[in-house]
Amino acid sequence: MIGRLNHVAIAVPDLEAAAAQYRDTLGAEVGAPQDELDHGVTVVFITLPNTKIELLYPLGDASPIRGFLEKNPAGGIHHICYEVDDILAARDRLKADGARVLGDGEPRIGAHGKPVLFLHPKDFNGCLIELEEV
Amino acid sequence: MIGRLNHVAIAVPDLEAAAAQYRDTLGAEVGAPQDELDHGVTVVFITLPNTKIELLYPLGDASPIRGFLEKNPAGGIHHICYEVDDILAARDRLKADGARVLGDGEPRIGAHGKPVLFLHPKDFNGCLIELEEV
Repeated sequence: MIGRLNHVAIAVPDLEAAAAQYRDTLGAEVGAPQDELDHGVTVVFITLPNTKIELLYPLGDASPIRGFLEKNPAGGIHHICYEVDDILAARDRLKADGARVLGDGEPRIGAHGKPVLFLHPKDFNGCLIELEEV
Repeated sequence: MIGRLNHVAIAVPDLEAAAAQYRDTLGAEVGAPQDELDHGVTVVFITLPNTKIELLYPLGDASPIRGFLEKNPAGGIHHICYEVDDILAARDRLKADGARVLGDGEPRIGAHGKPVLFLHPKDFNGCLIELEEV
């Protein structure tokens, strides 16, 4: 069911410093910061040859990243995203197997303009998983 | 400098259950458990179309995963691994930029039989980074 690893998302306490580090110290291809108002994050995309890293920084008071950074002031890996062909079929299979889908269980439009869902980390080895339909 | 994302490593409290979940619920290609005595882990490799997930479970009393699971009993993402062409050149560039390399700074032979180094998570947004020469 799951396909490619679409991205690894890392919450960072200083977006400019983290972007500069990936560009200058790690020598990666780093994009410009993009505000994603609907998702409460400013994102910097790092393009690797086979996948992406997304640096996340809180945008707005209701940002889902804010609480994460309060618990992890140095930052940390926030989630990983797997691609699926059919997000509703994926959701139904997961729910049938007892996995919890976050929110109301309906896909939202994610940061890439595609339908996404998040799965409960307690059901997946402490790992927050995003599914994105591609 | 960094190339492909070689893998994402997830520490899990129950290797058999996690492997079954990735195989049966998430529908991924899941390998057989492999004991890596030198690294204190039993590993299950999950092959995605563009990268790998490695499920890690402690092996032996000195396993580096044991402390992580004590702090994170449900499991969690333990590290991510970036590929580099020349690990000594990468190390020297990182050290020149003030990043700390774990251990004595000399590459070890990693779980894939290639030279690896780990970078200090405090220097990289709370994220433990492995570099692997390919």
